[in-house]
Amino acid sequence: MSDAPPTDTPQAEAPSKNALKKAQKEKEKAEKKAAAKARELAERSKKEADDAADVSAGLYGELPLCGSTDFKPTGTRRADLAQAAELEDKEITFRCWVENARVQSAKLAFLNLRQNLNTVQAVVAASEKLSKQMVKFCGSISTESTIVVTGLVKRVKEPIKSASIKDYEIHIQKLFIESKAEVPLPLQVEDAERPLPTAEEEQKEGEGDERPLVSLNTRLNNRTIDLRAKINQSIFVIKSGVCALFQEFLSKKGFVLVHTPKILGAASEGGANVFELKYFDRPAYLAQSPQFYKQMLIASRFQKVMEIGPVFRAENSNTARHLTEFTGLDLEMEFQENYHEVMGVLEELMLFIFGELNARYKKETELVRGVYHVDAFKLPSAGNVPRIPFKEGIAMLREAGEELNDYDDLTTPQEKLLGKLVLQKYNSDFYTLDQFPLAIRPAYTMPSPADPQLSNSYDMFMRGQEICSGAQRIHDSNLLASQMRKHDPPIDPESAGTKDYVDCFKFGCPPHAGGGFGLERIVQFWLGLPNIRMCSLFPRDPQRVVP
Amino acid sequence: MSDAPPTDTPQAEAPSKNALKKAQKEKEKAEKKAAAKARELAERSKKEADDAADVSAGLYGELPLCGSTDFKPTGTRRADLAQAAELEDKEITFRCWVENARVQSAKLAFLNLRQNLNTVQAVVAASEKLSKQMVKFCGSISTESTIVVTGLVKRVKEPIKSASIKDYEIHIQKLFIESKAEVPLPLQVEDAERPLPTAEEEQKEGEGDERPLVSLNTRLNNRTIDLRAKINQSIFVIKSGVCALFQEFLSKKGFVLVHTPKILGAASEGGANVFELKYFDRPAYLAQSPQFYKQMLIASRFQKVMEIGPVFRAENSNTARHLTEFTGLDLEMEFQENYHEVMGVLEELMLFIFGELNARYKKETELVRGVYHVDAFKLPSAGNVPRIPFKEGIAMLREAGEELNDYDDLTTPQEKLLGKLVLQKYNSDFYTLDQFPLAIRPAYTMPSPADPQLSNSYDMFMRGQEICSGAQRIHDSNLLASQMRKHDPPIDPESAGTKDYVDCFKFGCPPHAGGGFGLERIVQFWLGLPNIRMCSLFPRDPQRVVP
Repeated sequence: MSDAPPTDTPQAEAPSKNALKKAQKEKEKAEKKAAAKARELAERSKKEADDAADVSAGLYGELPLCGSTDFKPTGTRRADLAQAAELEDKEITFRCWVENARVQSAKLAFLNLRQNLNTVQAVVAASEKLSKQMVKFCGSISTESTIVVTGLVKRVKEPIKSASIKDYEIHIQKLFIESKAEVPLPLQVEDAERPLPTAEEEQKEGEGDERPLVSLNTRLNNRTIDLRAKINQSIFVIKSGVCALFQEFLSKKGFVLVHTPKILGAASEGGANVFELKYFDRPAYLAQSPQFYKQMLIASRFQKVMEIGPVFRAENSNTARHLTEFTGLDLEMEFQENYHEVMGVLEELMLFIFGELNARYKKETELVRGVYHVDAFKLPSAGNVPRIPFKEGIAMLREAGEELNDYDDLTTPQEKLLGKLVLQKYNSDFYTLDQFPLAIRPAYTMPSPADPQLSNSYDMFMRGQEICSGAQRIHDSNLLASQMRKHDPPIDPESAGTKDYVDCFKFGCPPHAGGGFGLERIVQFWLGLPNIRMCSLFPRDPQRVVP
Repeated sequence: MSDAPPTDTPQAEAPSKNALKKAQKEKEKAEKKAAAKARELAERSKKEADDAADVSAGLYGELPLCGSTDFKPTGTRRADLAQAAELEDKEITFRCWVENARVQSAKLAFLNLRQNLNTVQAVVAASEKLSKQMVKFCGSISTESTIVVTGLVKRVKEPIKSASIKDYEIHIQKLFIESKAEVPLPLQVEDAERPLPTAEEEQKEGEGDERPLVSLNTRLNNRTIDLRAKINQSIFVIKSGVCALFQEFLSKKGFVLVHTPKILGAASEGGANVFELKYFDRPAYLAQSPQFYKQMLIASRFQKVMEIGPVFRAENSNTARHLTEFTGLDLEMEFQENYHEVMGVLEELMLFIFGELNARYKKETELVRGVYHVDAFKLPSAGNVPRIPFKEGIAMLREAGEELNDYDDLTTPQEKLLGKLVLQKYNSDFYTLDQFPLAIRPAYTMPSPADPQLSNSYDMFMRGQEICSGAQRIHDSNLLASQMRKHDPPIDPESAGTKDYVDCFKFGCPPHAGGGFGLERIVQFWLGLPNIRMCSLFPRDPQRVVP
C-alpha cells in the first residue's frame, strides 16, 4: 500500500513549486524502492540458485531450540575430545564451544574449539562435498557460541601450538549452532585466563602498549563468562575435590555428616559480627559457625561429626583473605585421653587431602599455578607435620627480630614471616601452632594444664596463612559458664543464645576437640592465589552481593 | 567458734523465764552439736578404716576433668562393644554411658551400659578383690553419665533380654566417671525411643494408666537428650548416608560439587517467601534455592553440577512436611538431545541411593521402621521406575472418583491417593510424574513441544509425597524474558534479582535440566516417619528457631 504513488494530491490549478518538489521526491522514492526490490529479488534468486547448488545444505545451520520442538533424538554418541588419540581417522560428533572462528579464504576456515579443559583446531575446506557457503557460515560463528560438530579426527604433521590437543585436528563435516553468543562479549575469556593485575598494574590500566590485565572487579561482574576460563574451571574442580577428599577421609574414620541450622533464634558466641534477619515477626541471626551445634551433637552422643556448609561473618574486612560468606569444613570428635589425638586426625586429614590433590588433580593444579608462577607446596612426610608450641613460634619470631610478648596474638605479617621461618627450618608449607594464649581464644576453649595463661588450642597454616582454628572445648557446664563470665567481652551463660549450649554439658559429655577449616583458604593457599574471591564462585564481601 | 557455749548472756539479778528458756535452748543446741560432731568423727574414722580396708581403692571414682589436668595418657586401647563376641574372656577398657544402674544388694550391682547403638549388661560383685564400697558407687551412678569401664567379657547362660548384646556381659573391674549427669534429666532417653503421640494421644496426655507418649515439642525442646535415642541416632546416620550416596553416584558421573551464595543482593524468583536480612547498610535476602546459580554455572561451562546446602523458605506452612530451613540436594546438567536423559540420571540416582540404604544402612532402617511399624519401601527394578505423564496421573485419579481438570495442580491428598494407585498398579513406592502443566511451574520451565499448556517438567514421589521437583530450563535469553513477563505473577527480567541470570543465556548455553531434592523428605519417606522435624537435627519452622 505505502509504495503506491500518492493519489490524494490536492488538484490545484497551477501546481506550486513545493508541490512539484514533493512529486519529484516521491518519484525518486518510488524508483529507489523499485530498484531495491529488484536487487532483493536478484539476491534471493541467486541465493536460491546457490542453495540449490549448496552441496552442504542440511549439514550446517542453526538448530531449533532444543526441547521446545518435538524433534526425535538421534541417539548419536557424543565424543570426549580428551580421547582424541584413540579416535584417529574416526568420524565423531561432539558438543563444544567456539574459542574463535576465522575465514581464511572463500574455500577455507579455521575454528578453535573448546570442550572442558581441552582445545582443538578444526578445519572446514570447500570441496565437491563441502560448499563455500558452509565454509563462510562456519568461519563466521561468534566466539563462545555452543555448537555440535561432526568431523573426522586427523593426525597433523606439525604440532598445533594454539590448541591443547596438538597432534590432531578435526575435519568438519557437519556443524550446527545450538546456542549463538551475542556480540560483543562483556569480557573475553582469554583475558580471564591471564593473571589478575597487581595493585600497581591496576593503577596503570590503559597506559602503555601492552594489553591491560582485567581487574578482579570486572571479572566478577561478568562472572559467568569469567568462570569459563580454564584457570577458573580448574580452581573449582579442585575445590570440589577438597570437599570430596575431606568427606572420604573422615567417613572412613566414622564421622557422620551433619547439617546444623544456619538460622538462629539468638546471636551466640558473644553476638558480634552476625547478620540479623527478619524471621516472621521476630529477629533471628545467621550462624557465624556451627561451633555450638557440633558440640551439642557430641553431647548428644554423636562421637564424630563433620559438616560442610556456609558460614556467615558480618565483618567489615576488605582483605584478600576474608569473605562474608564462605564454606566451612567443620569437624568435632570425642577423644579418649588427650586432645592431641584430634590434632593427629586433623594433620593426617590434611596430608591425605594434599597427597590426593597431587595425585588426582595434578593437571588442574599445574594449570593454575602456572599462570601465577607459584612454587610447589612443600609437604612433610606422614607423621611429621611440624607441631610447634606457640611459645616456640614466639621465640622463632623474636630471633628473627620481631618484638612481641609471650601471650601476644600474631599479626598477619608475623604469621607470614613465621611461615617462612618454618619452611626454612622444617621444609614444610603446612604446620600447626599449638597451645595458644587463652586470652585470645573463644570462651569455650579448654585452659592448658601446663600454664593457665595458655590453652589446649591450635591453628593450622598453609604457606604462613591460617586455614584452621581448633581446640579442646570445655565439656563441663560449670567451668564453661565461669569461663564465659570471665571472658573479654563477657558472655552471659544464661542468655537465650547460649543457655541450651551451656546446659547440654550437664548430662554427661565426653571430652572433645575439633576444628573449622575455611575451604576457600585451603584452595587459595594450595594454589598460591592472590585473592580468596577467586576461590568463591560468586563471592560475597562487604561491597559485593551480586551477581 | 560458733559451737562454743554462749558466754555473753547478760548478768541479770533474777533471770526472767524467757532468759531461762533461752539458756535451756542453747544448752540443748550445744549438746546436739557435740553429738553431731561425735557422729561425724565416728563416721570419718569408720570411713577411713573402710577406705584403708577398701581393696578397690583407686579402681573407681571420678576422673579429674580431662584436659584441664596434666595427666599422662595411658594409651589403653578402647574397645568397641560391637566386637563383644570376639573379645570373650578378654579384659577390655571402653567408654560408654549409663542407661541405668541399680544396687541389688550390698554385694551386687547391675548396670545397663550403652555405646552407640549397642547396649550391654555389666555386673559388679563384691569379692575379696572388689569392695562393697565400689559396688555401692557403681550401682549409684546417675543415668546418662559418661564412664570409662575396664572389665572382662563373659558369656552368659541365658540371653539378656534388656540389652542388644544378649550373649555377653561385662564383669566390671574398674569404673571411673568422666562426666556425671545431673539429676533429674529433663527428658528420659527411653521416652525418646518411643513413637510420637498422634494428635489424639496428645490430647489424652495424663489420662489413663499408661505412661504417656512424650510430645514432639518436649522432645525438640530437649533435643540434645532426645538425639541420644537409638531411633534418632539411626535417623541421622541414614541422613548422612543419603548425602554420601548422592555424592558418590554423581561424582562418578562427573558432577562437580559447588557452593552457591546463600546471601543474595536482590530477591529472585519473584521475591515471595524470602527472608530479608541487614547486609551492612543495605537489605539482602536468603536464597530460597540455588536454582539461578546452578543454571548460571551451566552457562559457565560446568557441564554437571551438584550442591548440598541449606535452603531457606519464609513460608508460613505449619505442616508435617515443611521446614523453613532444610537441606537441598540439587543438581543441574547439560543434556545432548532430550531432557529425559536427565530424568534417567535422577531415577538411576535414587535407585542407587535406595539400594545402598538397604545394603549399608539395613540395621538403622529396620530399627526406625520397627518403632513406627512401617512397611518396607517397594522398589522398582533398574530401568523400570514408573514414569507417568501428568495427564495419565489425572486419568488415574478421575477413575478413582476424584474430580479435577486436565491442567489442575494436585492437592496433597490427591498426591497421596495417586501414590496408592501407582503402588497398586506398578508395585513401586517411587515414581516420576512428567509433563506438568506449564502454568503451575516456575517461569524458567521449558514449555512442552507436544502441548503449549504443558511443560518439560517433572516431580518425583516417595510413598505418594513429593521429594523432588525438576525440569528442563529455558536456555534462551529472549524466550526466558518473555516467559517471565507472561508469568503469573509476572517477573521483571530486567530487575536486579534476575538480570544477571537472564543475561547469562545470551552468550552460548547448552540445553540443560536438573532437579532439587529435599534431603529431610527423602529420609522421612524412606523411613515412613510422621513428621519431617524428626529428620532435622535442630528443626526450624515458623514457630521454632531454638535450640
